Amino acid sequence: MSVTTHDRTETSDGSTAARSVLVKPGMCGHNSLFVGRLGDWTWETVSDLCGTNAFDATNADGSPTYLSFYYFHIRGSRQMHVHGLTFGDRLRVASRLFDFGSESILTLHEVRPEGGPDAPVDPDRFYAYDDPRCIYVENYNRWISRSRPGSNRDLVKSSPVGFRHDHLPRLPDAYSPRRVYDHARNRLTFLDGLPADRVPRPGFTLDYPIDASRDLNGVGLLYFASYFSIIDWALLRYWRRLGRGTAAFLDRVVLDQRLCYLGNADADSVLRISVDSWQKAGDPGDEIVNLVVRDRDTGRTVAVSTLHVLSTGGAHDGA
Amino acid sequence: MSVTTHDRTETSDGSTAARSVLVKPGMCGHNSLFVGRLGDWTWETVSDLCGTNAFDATNADGSPTYLSFYYFHIRGSRQMHVHGLTFGDRLRVASRLFDFGSESILTLHEVRPEGGPDAPVDPDRFYAYDDPRCIYVENYNRWISRSRPGSNRDLVKSSPVGFRHDHLPRLPDAYSPRRVYDHARNRLTFLDGLPADRVPRPGFTLDYPIDASRDLNGVGLLYFASYFSIIDWALLRYWRRLGRGTAAFLDRVVLDQRLCYLGNADADSVLRISVDSWQKAGDPGDEIVNLVVRDRDTGRTVAVSTLHVLSTGGAHDGA
Repeated sequence: MSVTTHDRTETSDGSTAARSVLVKPGMCGHNSLFVGRLGDWTWETVSDLCGTNAFDATNADGSPTYLSFYYFHIRGSRQMHVHGLTFGDRLRVASRLFDFGSESILTLHEVRPEGGPDAPVDPDRFYAYDDPRCIYVENYNRWISRSRPGSNRDLVKSSPVGFRHDHLPRLPDAYSPRRVYDHARNRLTFLDGLPADRVPRPGFTLDYPIDASRDLNGVGLLYFASYFSIIDWALLRYWRRLGRGTAAFLDRVVLDQRLCYLGNADADSVLRISVDSWQKAGDPGDEIVNLVVRDRDTGRTVAVSTLHVLSTGGAHDGA
Repeated sequence: MSVTTHDRTETSDGSTAARSVLVKPGMCGHNSLFVGRLGDWTWETVSDLCGTNAFDATNADGSPTYLSFYYFHIRGSRQMHVHGLTFGDRLRVASRLFDFGSESILTLHEVRPEGGPDAPVDPDRFYAYDDPRCIYVENYNRWISRSRPGSNRDLVKSSPVGFRHDHLPRLPDAYSPRRVYDHARNRLTFLDGLPADRVPRPGFTLDYPIDASRDLNGVGLLYFASYFSIIDWALLRYWRRLGRGTAAFLDRVVLDQRLCYLGNADADSVLRISVDSWQKAGDPGDEIVNLVVRDRDTGRTVAVSTLHVLSTGGAHDGA
């Protein structure tokens, strides 16, 4: 019985790759493993189509350069969302790259149950987000290097040798992620003003000490998927403050999550996370949550994330 | 540039598979991602060679059954060890299965840098552990099911339909993992008596609340690789008690780790971990550490792990 998982094909325009995926314990669950795998698929797609091995890239100085995540957006549905994936699910992932010059790149992934038609990733259809069987994933990445050995602060832009991007399509301006992440960086939220028809809950802050035993990647930087874990850690504490049980947390549906990476952090830093939220009027299980993550000691903003989450009110919910 | 990672081949006796692996952010780092990937390779190998899709297996009653980890052993060297792997490394992984009846199976993995000869996994050579370029991994797994929906306790043995094992070789008795894990289960350590030429340090205990935001797998069980994360979490606290810095922790070399899984735990349990250790006389950076993990409320033993760890005394070590 074959469980081959990387049946990849490339399309003729050189910007798209598709892969068949059998979901395994190492890429699903109540953790950030699936997000981590999405990141690997971004790097794989760039490596396959842009002339540079993203897993082992160096700049003109010979220093390692990393295709760092700057903006990450995941959009699902009640029917198809990240925490709903489990062992044995078979997925088809279509990934397409868009040209953003020599220092950045945009990747759009469409993740669907296998068996449907193998549609190419079209920006108009992607940004309509109208297929409830699809998880839509947007990654904007930048090439960066360390400016000082051993430090995870003051990372600098740094293109690798041989990175080809001119052959990639341009994204229509209307969909540019730059407007979105600039807004998040300046306003510390992805929201355009206070959400209509929503009732704010009291905000709070909490401290997360970076865990050197599980948060760092293979080059000692705070792993991009760990930011998702840290956001989830804060979200669980938010759940508990509302008196909700663990089962209700595990049953949540994250319809939409945006995350902007504004800085890395050293392995012994403490992060201070502020949490604000708005419930839908008359529906306390439909919430928008905004989190700002700062380095506690320096005050530097490290990340901003905005989520749209549903509590499904399962048997253990108590809500 | 191809970064295909699952170039798998099977050998003619039907017990061995080999794969080429490009190390990616999602499978390395200061975390348990590589261990998680080893687990996926065990399930893949069984699925490929034993007639049952381990990622989606059911027993005769139609209930899901999981190829649960019972004993895990990883042995490396200063030169080649789990936390030394990083992005872009290319590995060759040879995996061989051994017959342990219808309810269990043993998998031996040999992980080497790619480029050497593709040697078959031979038990005598495997258990000699004499190649410093090899990470040796031993997995003993049992098929289990939940006995009650929603509970992670009282898991029961449960073979899947169609599981073929008669064609697999038998392991020479001298190497049987049963003796090893029975010892660990009965004595709560993998050590045979007090280690010679070693000086005990004071033991201590600490509590780890299971983190529903990152410890559970895609079917709601405590993820097998999370046990490694929890052990590492305790190890980091042990490091700090000794006044060692974070950089020294990240520089550690785990030469050998054995882990026996004696129980699972619910998502809101608290684990109580007892830590005992012995330093080498005259070499405080060479330690054997034994950890026993119990469910704090019931006292049930959940896991036993014994490690041989080196502090390399790097620039930040302070030792």
